[in-house]
Amino acid sequence: MADLRGGIDLGGTKIQAAIVDRRGDVSGEARQPTPTSGGPEDVAAAMATALREAATAAGVEPAELAGIGVGSPGDANEQTGVVSSARNLPGWEGSFPLAEVLAKDLGTEVKVGNDVQVATEAEFHLGAGQEFGSLIGVFWGTGVGGGLVLDGKPWLGRGAAGEIGHVVVKRGGAKCPCGRKGCLEAYAGRSAMEAEARRLHEEGHKTDLFHLMEKHGKPRLTSGIWERALDHGDHLAEKLIERAIEALGTGIASAVNLLDPEAVILGGGLGVRFGDRLMDPLLAEMHKHLFLDEKPPAVRVASLGDLGGAVGASLLISR
Amino acid sequence: MADLRGGIDLGGTKIQAAIVDRRGDVSGEARQPTPTSGGPEDVAAAMATALREAATAAGVEPAELAGIGVGSPGDANEQTGVVSSARNLPGWEGSFPLAEVLAKDLGTEVKVGNDVQVATEAEFHLGAGQEFGSLIGVFWGTGVGGGLVLDGKPWLGRGAAGEIGHVVVKRGGAKCPCGRKGCLEAYAGRSAMEAEARRLHEEGHKTDLFHLMEKHGKPRLTSGIWERALDHGDHLAEKLIERAIEALGTGIASAVNLLDPEAVILGGGLGVRFGDRLMDPLLAEMHKHLFLDEKPPAVRVASLGDLGGAVGASLLISR
Repeated sequence: MADLRGGIDLGGTKIQAAIVDRRGDVSGEARQPTPTSGGPEDVAAAMATALREAATAAGVEPAELAGIGVGSPGDANEQTGVVSSARNLPGWEGSFPLAEVLAKDLGTEVKVGNDVQVATEAEFHLGAGQEFGSLIGVFWGTGVGGGLVLDGKPWLGRGAAGEIGHVVVKRGGAKCPCGRKGCLEAYAGRSAMEAEARRLHEEGHKTDLFHLMEKHGKPRLTSGIWERALDHGDHLAEKLIERAIEALGTGIASAVNLLDPEAVILGGGLGVRFGDRLMDPLLAEMHKHLFLDEKPPAVRVASLGDLGGAVGASLLISR
Repeated sequence: MADLRGGIDLGGTKIQAAIVDRRGDVSGEARQPTPTSGGPEDVAAAMATALREAATAAGVEPAELAGIGVGSPGDANEQTGVVSSARNLPGWEGSFPLAEVLAKDLGTEVKVGNDVQVATEAEFHLGAGQEFGSLIGVFWGTGVGGGLVLDGKPWLGRGAAGEIGHVVVKRGGAKCPCGRKGCLEAYAGRSAMEAEARRLHEEGHKTDLFHLMEKHGKPRLTSGIWERALDHGDHLAEKLIERAIEALGTGIASAVNLLDPEAVILGGGLGVRFGDRLMDPLLAEMHKHLFLDEKPPAVRVASLGDLGGAVGASLLISR
């Protein structure tokens, strides 16, 4: 039992928990929707529920785990276990001692790390990045996050490296959920895309996006709703996805021009869902801005899929 | 004598040579204008002339040097000594065995490296970056080059990292000398700035830039000419410098969001000349796009000045 670790990926839309062994194999998993109101305590309670369900599926008690790693958005301090400024989560503008609260609730050690960085390391060690020595992880979901592995090791900078979603793709451009202008995330983050779709819909542009959302009982435009809309040939959805791909190609090319890594791994809810389908247009957009266009990096879709974040989080325990 | 190394910084405007001891002190230096016509052979001949003059000033023969390092634009292969695609230099679209040709001419070992990377390492070891563990070097001159030192070591990627001049600041924006659109260099590189000034002047915008250039007998808009125009309150020069600073602030902020380094070192002909004078507007522009704006990196002007490139090149010999 001591060989089993828990991993929790805390996303803006859902909480994914997994029970993982030393080889990275998953013996139980569960998910919960991320609360859309309340505060950090409510989010922590939903995380504990997801972890308990995953433990039950694996036939283990949470307290028997060697520990639980949490991949968190915002500023996740690995030393203190405190998470600050997780602005995609309800009421989490300030600081909250997430590791301490969860450890007390679940009866085992809890460590927190940056969600996207741990998912990048998971792909590097266990997933689509195994054959490369350096890579940029790009996680395209509610926001656009990034993680870096250079020369086989995580590059964290002063603790906040990897924010590829806030690489500027257009000076003076669209307003980003972070409050600044022209960031990659302002065009490609699912939150920003939904806001733009809503604005255009209210202006009178036709789209089935919101009809599909209601029909399928979703509280927001999920990756699945975007896919259905594309499958139906929804023109507005196509336009906004194309705009996202243009921004992703531009921002990724900028990062590649700066770092010249061996590979780019595309993950996240939208990245995993659309990575194969939209790989060619993405590569074409990147190519427009690659300084060494005859020597592009490999671009791969994250292979650990939806579970990559939770598996990566579990790696925090063996560090 | 064996303790003395030669260093040559091959720039788009001038060739700077220096004779450097093990502590980084310069005992002789000389410069030559970079040929604006001809081909790689002519550039190599001018480099040899500059190095011979510097050696004479230091009271040493070139053949007595422990070796000569060359910081080169384009794709400089440290292993083979071949320089390819140095598009800022005349007739240098292809490959040229620069190290071999110079070694035969000067009678000692010659090594080539990327000009901006060696200048960044010089600032890290001997200059404005000595107190930091990680930094981005930004060299603002004819083009905009960059170099990276992460965790005390150069980060070269697959050999071409650091191209901050080709980080996109505006998707679909101005045409860059590299042929792509919206790169930082398209707004801030001196070549691009001169082309834009010329275009606006021909359109009828008033400026003293070209009058000053002729009066001082310069073949192009040098950093000194730009400074004189600013001193005279030339409106068009002010506008173009402001545009360059906006682009620099945006591109540097994107790089900082991705790498979260301890420091940014601003060098290059324009960077050294304007670094102090324009530091406040540069920081203000960066600040608009920094994801962690409460924790900006230190920004310092390169302290090895015009000689930094040549001194950095000489470090290639002790590697």
